Amino acid sequence: MDKSYVAVREVMLRDGLQNIREFFPTDVKINLFKLMVASGLRNIEITSFVNPKAVPQFQDAAQLVQAVLKLKPAGVEVSALVPNLKGAEKALESGMRNLAFVMSVSESHNINNVRRTTAASLEEMKRILELKVPYPDMNIKAGLATVFGCPFEGKIKPQVTLNFVRQFYNLGLRDVSLADTVGFGNPKEVKEVCGLCLSEFPDVTFGIHLHNTRGLGPANAFAAFESGIRLLDGAIGGLGGCPFAPGAKGNISTEDLVFMFEEMGVRTGINLEALLEASQYFKTVKKDASFSSSILEAGVPAPRGAITMDGSEQKWNI
Amino acid sequence: MDKSYVAVREVMLRDGLQNIREFFPTDVKINLFKLMVASGLRNIEITSFVNPKAVPQFQDAAQLVQAVLKLKPAGVEVSALVPNLKGAEKALESGMRNLAFVMSVSESHNINNVRRTTAASLEEMKRILELKVPYPDMNIKAGLATVFGCPFEGKIKPQVTLNFVRQFYNLGLRDVSLADTVGFGNPKEVKEVCGLCLSEFPDVTFGIHLHNTRGLGPANAFAAFESGIRLLDGAIGGLGGCPFAPGAKGNISTEDLVFMFEEMGVRTGINLEALLEASQYFKTVKKDASFSSSILEAGVPAPRGAITMDGSEQKWNI
Repeated sequence: MDKSYVAVREVMLRDGLQNIREFFPTDVKINLFKLMVASGLRNIEITSFVNPKAVPQFQDAAQLVQAVLKLKPAGVEVSALVPNLKGAEKALESGMRNLAFVMSVSESHNINNVRRTTAASLEEMKRILELKVPYPDMNIKAGLATVFGCPFEGKIKPQVTLNFVRQFYNLGLRDVSLADTVGFGNPKEVKEVCGLCLSEFPDVTFGIHLHNTRGLGPANAFAAFESGIRLLDGAIGGLGGCPFAPGAKGNISTEDLVFMFEEMGVRTGINLEALLEASQYFKTVKKDASFSSSILEAGVPAPRGAITMDGSEQKWNI
Repeated sequence: MDKSYVAVREVMLRDGLQNIREFFPTDVKINLFKLMVASGLRNIEITSFVNPKAVPQFQDAAQLVQAVLKLKPAGVEVSALVPNLKGAEKALESGMRNLAFVMSVSESHNINNVRRTTAASLEEMKRILELKVPYPDMNIKAGLATVFGCPFEGKIKPQVTLNFVRQFYNLGLRDVSLADTVGFGNPKEVKEVCGLCLSEFPDVTFGIHLHNTRGLGPANAFAAFESGIRLLDGAIGGLGGCPFAPGAKGNISTEDLVFMFEEMGVRTGINLEALLEASQYFKTVKKDASFSSSILEAGVPAPRGAITMDGSEQKWNI
């Protein structure tokens, strides 16, 4: 298996912002998007078409989509989360064509998160797929939440996840994201579940969405990579978490992901120095931003020879 | 390869304290040792026989050894670091029989850390081994520092490390610890270097000593485990770092190590709840202790069913 590259999908604009009550103007989001593209990120989730009453942060979803599409970011896959048919319709009306539908494999979490049973979510997905008639260029991927543990139900059996993947597969979907929504996963489990998914569905592109709640994010990312996953979500600054998942905080930071893979000689196409400008910019907008990123804290290791024998070290000034 | 267990060596009393200027009375160290043993830790490095002028924290090394040995902790391997012949002599005189000799594979780091060349360190090791005549029950293991990167020389070639292991092997040593002294390692490199060591020296017990400087500690621990390593160092609270390695801070936290392995179904023999009492105790002694441990920050995930549907979560109160 090719171990020379990995793709990182940036979800800070969606997962990183959804827990922050303070509304950020569309311009701030556009500036962040531009910095993301400038760093080399080529897969960016920019917003969520949830009910704006539930998450007011995304009240500008349609405007943001239109503004970003106007930038015509060549070679960049721009996507938006949709939790239901209504969200999908709004997304498509705004001009968005890459939709990420999300549901939980845990019944309780799905009810808490999107206010319906998993069976109802699957029915909703079918209705969304019917939108392919008016919108033939619609792309949709399925995101499965709580695959590696649910705050209400605890551990989830891999067969539960595989069963949902199978149902999506039978609906024609070939893009599935596996999410450790609350940071309960461990590397052994990640390796096993990803391995099962990849072997049973070799023609599906699986992505993984990890949280670093208990410090295992990078270990889980490495395990996913070892099992064959080549698409990993990250959020700049390690911001984010699911608003309906108690105890969940902090996506795995994109900086840490990029650092780990580049250090392993695995190309991400992302310039870490440029990437750091996005969190620096966000800090100017939100001075009390609570970042959770080892690279932001410890700095990138200085290049060889940049440290003098007297012990002084060149560090990134973050 | 048996993946059902792993041994964790606790180094907080040595590596965790050596950077703290404030001297902790021997009684505090004994209390910590007792809490470590009570948690199930069976491999504990308790002090360092360095020059007490260089590291005053260890001025009570001999007294601590005598006090700990009086406890007769059955089944617990108690050890002490020795940087040179003088330290080894002092350790043996105090009654200590398990010595951990340490040197760096990087020439510059060795000079900075123990004030001699690597060739001189190897000669020192030979002189220490001659102490087997007066002390036939002496056990000695070799610790190799900066295996996964040096703050002065950058990356270290695996062959450099293998060469030192070979020289120790030829001297009769069968216990070698590989250290990521400054947290520069990545999981791919850890897997490769450990794999090379284990395949070339199948009758050597290799341990690994990781720092979490850039958040890759658990990923590197998982990689080491996957490659066959079954002995990993940790420091309670993630305290520590090498005083002569600029930028180095924070051993991998024992709590995080235990959590990760137990979550993977790999037995450590350590009770996480009991382990947390050690950092709680240390906090009463040093109120501004700067812990670096995801488990101390985020808490242990609540057991299944302990989280209610209204979103409240039971957490460890740390």
